[in-house]
Amino acid sequence: MPTDLLDRIETPADLRKLDRAQLAVLADQLRAFVLESVSRTGGHLSSNLGTVELTIALHYVFDTPGDRIVWDVGHQTYPHKILTGRRADMGTLRQQGGISGFPRRSESEYDAFGTAHSSTSISAALGMAVAARIEGVPRKHIAVIGDGAMTAGMAFEALNNGGVLPDVDLLVILNDNDMSISPPVGALNRYLARLMSGKFYAAARNVGKAVLSHVPPVYELARRFEEHAKGMVTPATMFEELGFTYVGPIDGHDLDSLIPTLQNLRKQTGPRFLHVVTRKGQGYKLAEADPVLYHGPGKFDPAVGISQPATPPKQTFTQVFGNWLCDMAAADGRLVGITPAMREGSGLVEFEQRFPARYFDVGIAEQHAVTFAAGLACEGLKPVVAIYSTFLQRGYDQLIHDVALQNLDVTFALDRAGLVGADGATHAGNYDIAFVRCVPNMVVATPSDEAECRLLLSTCYAHPGPATVRYPRGAGRGAAAGRGLETVALGKGVVRRESGRAGEARQSVAILAFGTLAVPALRAAEALDATLVDMRFVKPIDRELILDLASRHAALVTVEEGCVMGGAGSAVCEVLNEAGVTLPVLQLGLPDRFVDHGDQAGLLGALGLDAAGLQASVRQRFPEWVGEATAG
Amino acid sequence: MPTDLLDRIETPADLRKLDRAQLAVLADQLRAFVLESVSRTGGHLSSNLGTVELTIALHYVFDTPGDRIVWDVGHQTYPHKILTGRRADMGTLRQQGGISGFPRRSESEYDAFGTAHSSTSISAALGMAVAARIEGVPRKHIAVIGDGAMTAGMAFEALNNGGVLPDVDLLVILNDNDMSISPPVGALNRYLARLMSGKFYAAARNVGKAVLSHVPPVYELARRFEEHAKGMVTPATMFEELGFTYVGPIDGHDLDSLIPTLQNLRKQTGPRFLHVVTRKGQGYKLAEADPVLYHGPGKFDPAVGISQPATPPKQTFTQVFGNWLCDMAAADGRLVGITPAMREGSGLVEFEQRFPARYFDVGIAEQHAVTFAAGLACEGLKPVVAIYSTFLQRGYDQLIHDVALQNLDVTFALDRAGLVGADGATHAGNYDIAFVRCVPNMVVATPSDEAECRLLLSTCYAHPGPATVRYPRGAGRGAAAGRGLETVALGKGVVRRESGRAGEARQSVAILAFGTLAVPALRAAEALDATLVDMRFVKPIDRELILDLASRHAALVTVEEGCVMGGAGSAVCEVLNEAGVTLPVLQLGLPDRFVDHGDQAGLLGALGLDAAGLQASVRQRFPEWVGEATAG
Repeated sequence: MPTDLLDRIETPADLRKLDRAQLAVLADQLRAFVLESVSRTGGHLSSNLGTVELTIALHYVFDTPGDRIVWDVGHQTYPHKILTGRRADMGTLRQQGGISGFPRRSESEYDAFGTAHSSTSISAALGMAVAARIEGVPRKHIAVIGDGAMTAGMAFEALNNGGVLPDVDLLVILNDNDMSISPPVGALNRYLARLMSGKFYAAARNVGKAVLSHVPPVYELARRFEEHAKGMVTPATMFEELGFTYVGPIDGHDLDSLIPTLQNLRKQTGPRFLHVVTRKGQGYKLAEADPVLYHGPGKFDPAVGISQPATPPKQTFTQVFGNWLCDMAAADGRLVGITPAMREGSGLVEFEQRFPARYFDVGIAEQHAVTFAAGLACEGLKPVVAIYSTFLQRGYDQLIHDVALQNLDVTFALDRAGLVGADGATHAGNYDIAFVRCVPNMVVATPSDEAECRLLLSTCYAHPGPATVRYPRGAGRGAAAGRGLETVALGKGVVRRESGRAGEARQSVAILAFGTLAVPALRAAEALDATLVDMRFVKPIDRELILDLASRHAALVTVEEGCVMGGAGSAVCEVLNEAGVTLPVLQLGLPDRFVDHGDQAGLLGALGLDAAGLQASVRQRFPEWVGEATAG
Repeated sequence: MPTDLLDRIETPADLRKLDRAQLAVLADQLRAFVLESVSRTGGHLSSNLGTVELTIALHYVFDTPGDRIVWDVGHQTYPHKILTGRRADMGTLRQQGGISGFPRRSESEYDAFGTAHSSTSISAALGMAVAARIEGVPRKHIAVIGDGAMTAGMAFEALNNGGVLPDVDLLVILNDNDMSISPPVGALNRYLARLMSGKFYAAARNVGKAVLSHVPPVYELARRFEEHAKGMVTPATMFEELGFTYVGPIDGHDLDSLIPTLQNLRKQTGPRFLHVVTRKGQGYKLAEADPVLYHGPGKFDPAVGISQPATPPKQTFTQVFGNWLCDMAAADGRLVGITPAMREGSGLVEFEQRFPARYFDVGIAEQHAVTFAAGLACEGLKPVVAIYSTFLQRGYDQLIHDVALQNLDVTFALDRAGLVGADGATHAGNYDIAFVRCVPNMVVATPSDEAECRLLLSTCYAHPGPATVRYPRGAGRGAAAGRGLETVALGKGVVRRESGRAGEARQSVAILAFGTLAVPALRAAEALDATLVDMRFVKPIDRELILDLASRHAALVTVEEGCVMGGAGSAVCEVLNEAGVTLPVLQLGLPDRFVDHGDQAGLLGALGLDAAGLQASVRQRFPEWVGEATAG
């Protein structure tokens, strides 16, 4: 594939020098580059193949970076990154020290707003548009949002607000591509499908073409004609009811539709809404056929496609959860599984197949997911909400106000707790221990390996009140989780290793581990002849055990893959302070800063949270209380 | 006013024995009782006068408590409480040990779901409806939601989910009363107004009457006729597009419309939407004329109405904030004020009048409010988000992901931090210190009085990054706040009282106060000859000062009106642990349980957080380090 046109483009200004007829060729070159690049680094593929033409058209028509483009979610911005000076960096994508997989303000002036969690773009672009009005700057603001992201309440809130601000310059572009992957999960998606379907879509498209062939000279007339034509085809759309001028749907892979439409919309002001239809994976047959498989692949050979690995990888915590959920659902007809649009990521594929009547994908709607679960629990069912730690932040008020306050029996399975690797700081699940444990009635469980994860899921599920079980992305130490449904004592830790020097003389250190860092912590404990406890629960915390450990050791060390501030280590100190026990405590965990993307193990090592790092920290702080390596 | 009909009703079953013709008389008696009762206890008035007929009609038509009614927000449930066995308890409303101002599952089997924060009802009722489907229970589920609450994204998420579940039995009743109070703040409200306005409403109403006069015999025909008639008048409503059968608008004070309509809707299944128009304050002329004034009055004489108090009350923190905001806006054209539908409660009335172009009421939309502010901040403006502590829980992810991660200059003014009194546990702002301080880049300020509040607002506003300033409901000690805009050093505390015995001998206690408990803590410190520090900031915390205090005292005591778990006291311990300093710490603050409604001062006293309680706690824990009362 030649790259002669792509080679010419260092910034969008270069793009705007091209002849319009060259843009389709550029699109081919850009698409080929994206495919080649992602196949070498891994990353998001389907969504980026779907936005090639839209990205070209936006930078061609709008005066970026002066005009602001806010990309919702932002995992579809590889074409944007390539066209805005970062083509040479694409080989470092999502790697430590490399460029981010999402837009970042600190990375480029073309990244008007950092995104990653869905559905923020309209709010942010509206804020920028209001700022332009206040400051008297004649600037354009574009939010590009997918149909999935549009189902989140936050997007609706922003539309509701923007629709009554007629003097702001805001263009919302709905990048509608859900049709091709899976059944729409919400009423809005069904509605969008209706807008796109059959005669209306065809008619509107023809009208659009007819209108567009006459612009710009008789623009005003054309606009009136368009409105009239639309009125004949369909009643006002929901977006028009909300105060937006609605245009579309148009074909998002057809530059001859995109560019004149955007040029027209650029001339207007006020809240406008452009409905663009694209196909995930466009232009790469394998991804078109299976956009879910190609949503976020690892490295692969584009000529062959994604192949199954020869040796199956270690079981992930996500799989441990998925298996447990199916087994528990088979044993207990009251179990209901809920996901906010994360069926694959949260390990619910098999559960949906086996228990479709008890499976609920509620859309990207974390607030609703939590309170919906509360309603189910009121009626004696036992909902399990499968949600990433970072996304529970979206349902925090509902966790407090609807679940915990009413002490309802909802189990939260928090995947991706702690550092998440390539997705970086936006997706890090660093805060859940701190923000959940301060809420009355909550149970907070931190399994240390796969087998513990299953045990603690069963235990929290059996507990007749609200609970979170947090586990990290990827695999653990490889402990076989089995298929049992047994439980353990709530709020009780387990001593995994006893220091040879623990006792009344208080000559050694006890390490209290919360979660999967118990594995490196055990190695550190062996090297230091320290006691090692798998605490299992942050809340209720094992007060008796802590006080016993405090009575037999010179110092305590707490270890967690979560923020130190307000985390499990703080919970240990609260127990000591409440009991009037004073001894040195070293709190180890994640620092008070955002940690960028990179390899999970590498990041933990750099933060001193691998076995060597933990050992060094303890040795440095308590040189007098550590011993030499023993057999444990 | 006679109460003969009301006297007969202990439960809704008694209500259902009445003749339909008696219900209008009952409504009069119930309305008079509500007015009389609220005038004696204080509480919500306008909204309850507006729901008298709707409440009667719902309990008359539906088989409560078997059928479930979920009241959104729930401050409009006094008629419901009166008709469900709690009439005699109305004198204890919102008082310590008395009944709650909101529905509570623990209070009555008729309270299907506890509410207070807005927009949860559809999610909860949908959960219950799905549970009924799974369990095979033929039960009806009704969510009653106001037009304000409908603007929240959470309500949209629930509609979006419910609209694709055709086999659940869910009736959403939109109690639309916004028309009469203030200009609609969002596009949805404007849309609703359009549905209600002019010819359409009149026509629909007449159609409704005509249809209803023939039910039930020719119900199916009537329904078809109704649909046909609606089709002539208006295209499908937004709610129909989302999969709900839409009926309305009907007059929510006309029992002859309400009851047959509800009877019809009761016979149907699937997601239905009834649009009911009511008037806040209905039936009490003074409240009809000024529903905002009568929204949540204190005690008053119904014959006279609310009168201004002879002596003006002490300035509240809300007023301190409102004044500061106006003064800072006058001094700095970059300031923008944002409220999620809390203009009065957050003290923004004057700001809106004086700076309308920089005032944004974004609706009940906390998620959007925060990211909208982030967008403004990206463009160099300086947004101030005025939000209750408890409602910031709704924008938590946005605070982390959109504001803090990008280190944007947004100032959050957190009103109602700590216990809130009559509103109780649902509205308590107990968690913000814990859930904000664990987020990198955030500043957390805790002013101790009115003057400090103004100082710390100015300081956090001047800080070019994100910050929260938390202050409690009501008035403080009465410190004159002045009108200056000076700032103090970020992250530095102030020693207010030095113990006579502080020093190398370490014979005394230092009390570190965060927030307004500094006032009783100072009195306790005087009585105990302790050092008293107004820490001002939880984050960045004054590390130097803490270590200095630790070097000169035998023990530290932390005091905060926030949860002990993960709170400011934990921050102090983290500093000590990080520095390797070990000394006894007593952490005083709010306990790990939900605290019910009651008088703020009384509740704090009961929790040992008044001067006497603080003194007693310190004396009990550190008897050897406290002295006798001194002049300080």
